[in-house]
Amino acid sequence: MDFDLTNTTAILERTPHVLRALLAGLSPAWTDATEGPDTWSPYVVMGHLVHAERADWIPRARLIVAQGTHRRFTPFDRFAQFRDSQGKSLQDLLDEFAQLRAESLATLAGWRLTDDELALEGEHPAFGAVTLRQLLATWTAHDLSHIAQITRVMSKQYREAVGPWRQYLPIMDR
Amino acid sequence: MDFDLTNTTAILERTPHVLRALLAGLSPAWTDATEGPDTWSPYVVMGHLVHAERADWIPRARLIVAQGTHRRFTPFDRFAQFRDSQGKSLQDLLDEFAQLRAESLATLAGWRLTDDELALEGEHPAFGAVTLRQLLATWTAHDLSHIAQITRVMSKQYREAVGPWRQYLPIMDR
Repeated sequence: MDFDLTNTTAILERTPHVLRALLAGLSPAWTDATEGPDTWSPYVVMGHLVHAERADWIPRARLIVAQGTHRRFTPFDRFAQFRDSQGKSLQDLLDEFAQLRAESLATLAGWRLTDDELALEGEHPAFGAVTLRQLLATWTAHDLSHIAQITRVMSKQYREAVGPWRQYLPIMDR
Repeated sequence: MDFDLTNTTAILERTPHVLRALLAGLSPAWTDATEGPDTWSPYVVMGHLVHAERADWIPRARLIVAQGTHRRFTPFDRFAQFRDSQGKSLQDLLDEFAQLRAESLATLAGWRLTDDELALEGEHPAFGAVTLRQLLATWTAHDLSHIAQITRVMSKQYREAVGPWRQYLPIMDR
């Protein structure tokens, strides 16, 4: 599927609602569950999404749109949430994410990006030149992949409880 | 995590809301997308969930709860949706699923299941004896696994569009 800005924002604006429908008010038995040592719980993923919203997507897009002399992205800290989420409830993170995402989408809409602007480049610290279009596609896929992760982590909590049905549920051993 | 009926229904009642937040009003570019030949789109998955709601979970649970002479489950048709969804829009399926799930949950709550009843058995056509607890755990994991599938299928539509970020998105090649 080719990148399409309307289809992209259609996903980005849904994500806070999906996460709220999935996680708000849910027992910590689900939201603090992981796939084992050094893997992330739904709570940790929410902190990661909040941090990405603040430090990654729009700041990087802004660097590209500005096309100033400095177009190199600040490296993203994949572990910032272990510090930043301290003292915050899951509900706090859901609310914070929804607020930040609304601001991000307002910024994005305000740019009224053209196809030419979507082809502008920034410099990724590991990959080198990347386009604004690739950044926005990644933002979208990143949302979807973390919803998939959260539901995978949760489903695995019933790996034993499902008994013989485990063989029909490949997600249990993924 | 041990099976817990309250934690189980907490997931089951969320699923229609999650699917609506994720899919309602979304472009067919996302909802008819697949992972390749003979794989399922979000639309196909929704038809499968509707069929399972009608033909699988509560009918099987009812056979177990009744403990009559006939405790063998009817085999589930994994392809029924290709027939049953004909002429239905995605919105129809989302609405039908929400309605059926509400009825399922009302039935389940009405049984006021005890621990002893959760240990009652039915006969799965392939596995033999399975407990009501295992059936309800599977119902829950099945919901979560299909949300994971839908978001995986959608994220893969941007496999090329993300450019070099693909190497940071393992979901793209799963």
